[in-house]
Amino acid sequence: MTKKVFPMRTISPEGAPIPSHAKLAFKGKVFEVWQWEQKLFDGSVETFEQLKRQNTAQVIPVVGDNILIQLESQPNVSQSFLSLPGGRCLPDEKSLDAAKRELLEETGYTSNDWILCKEQNSIGRIDWTVYTYIARNCIFQKPQQLDSGEKINTRLVTFDEFLMLSEDQSFYERELIPMLLYARFDQKIKDEFRNLLFKKR
Amino acid sequence: MTKKVFPMRTISPEGAPIPSHAKLAFKGKVFEVWQWEQKLFDGSVETFEQLKRQNTAQVIPVVGDNILIQLESQPNVSQSFLSLPGGRCLPDEKSLDAAKRELLEETGYTSNDWILCKEQNSIGRIDWTVYTYIARNCIFQKPQQLDSGEKINTRLVTFDEFLMLSEDQSFYERELIPMLLYARFDQKIKDEFRNLLFKKR
Repeated sequence: MTKKVFPMRTISPEGAPIPSHAKLAFKGKVFEVWQWEQKLFDGSVETFEQLKRQNTAQVIPVVGDNILIQLESQPNVSQSFLSLPGGRCLPDEKSLDAAKRELLEETGYTSNDWILCKEQNSIGRIDWTVYTYIARNCIFQKPQQLDSGEKINTRLVTFDEFLMLSEDQSFYERELIPMLLYARFDQKIKDEFRNLLFKKR
Repeated sequence: MTKKVFPMRTISPEGAPIPSHAKLAFKGKVFEVWQWEQKLFDGSVETFEQLKRQNTAQVIPVVGDNILIQLESQPNVSQSFLSLPGGRCLPDEKSLDAAKRELLEETGYTSNDWILCKEQNSIGRIDWTVYTYIARNCIFQKPQQLDSGEKINTRLVTFDEFLMLSEDQSFYERELIPMLLYARFDQKIKDEFRNLLFKKR
């Protein structure tokens, strides 16, 4: 299914779903491996394999005239990197609830004004969606509460600095780069994105 | 390691490597699941998990003044999609050899003039690189030889049509979209990309 709310709000097409007769071949800490017998075009049969993982919720937090980004370290990654607040949805947790939870845990901020900006379905061999929310008018609530696998420093950047993250090799959120490029190169799209983030409504 | 040969030739930063003491928890048809005990920032330990799969070689084939793309169907995917020739590297097969093999199998074309255009390392939880080659001056050699899991029709598009695949929701090669957008929006980059594809050298 393809639904396009272009340019600044996009839902990408879904990949092939894991068929209902597939079997769980392995359940790891993060990934599940599913396999099934797939009939090919000539009638022969082959074992196909796809992955499944919990969806991800990601947040673009608006604080005053700025956007909050993170400088993040992880225990198995040698270099720190730039990221947005976010993380895995818990089992049965809706993506918006995960977005609110992760924003509060990682930054201490909350918002009462949320917009779903992007829904990126993986089209490869993995059943996984990344939801990107805009959290408008964020307010600082309490100190961040990190788990022992996280080190996160927050910083505020201007809208233009945010768009230029598309050039930054240490920016982790690669799936957002097309959106940032559109806004850099097309004034109309840039205005629309700026309004989505900052304009009173 | 970050190496940037921007804009039309790029090597993206690598994600965290799977540590040497990791153990293979599951070996599937396509994916391997690796796990290890990771020390966290507070000294506690948690099981971390990453995937590994064979790298992918992908080809932008130049045929005369045009670029060859594919309309492809797969037995488990309900809608056909637009793609480039390419596929998984075989064990121990170099990416350039895989690119040559896939181009010949899927399209029947060969080339004697290859350029590595892009090397995209996955930065998520998967050890996987997609190599994108330009195959200049392709010549038709013999009919395509598809395996029973493939249905592929080739078509030729102009350079501008190729760039506009960045708007096409059925274009499968998402990791190329930033490159296509740069070329659409920046005349200098567009000229550089056109020369890389078509200019005699």
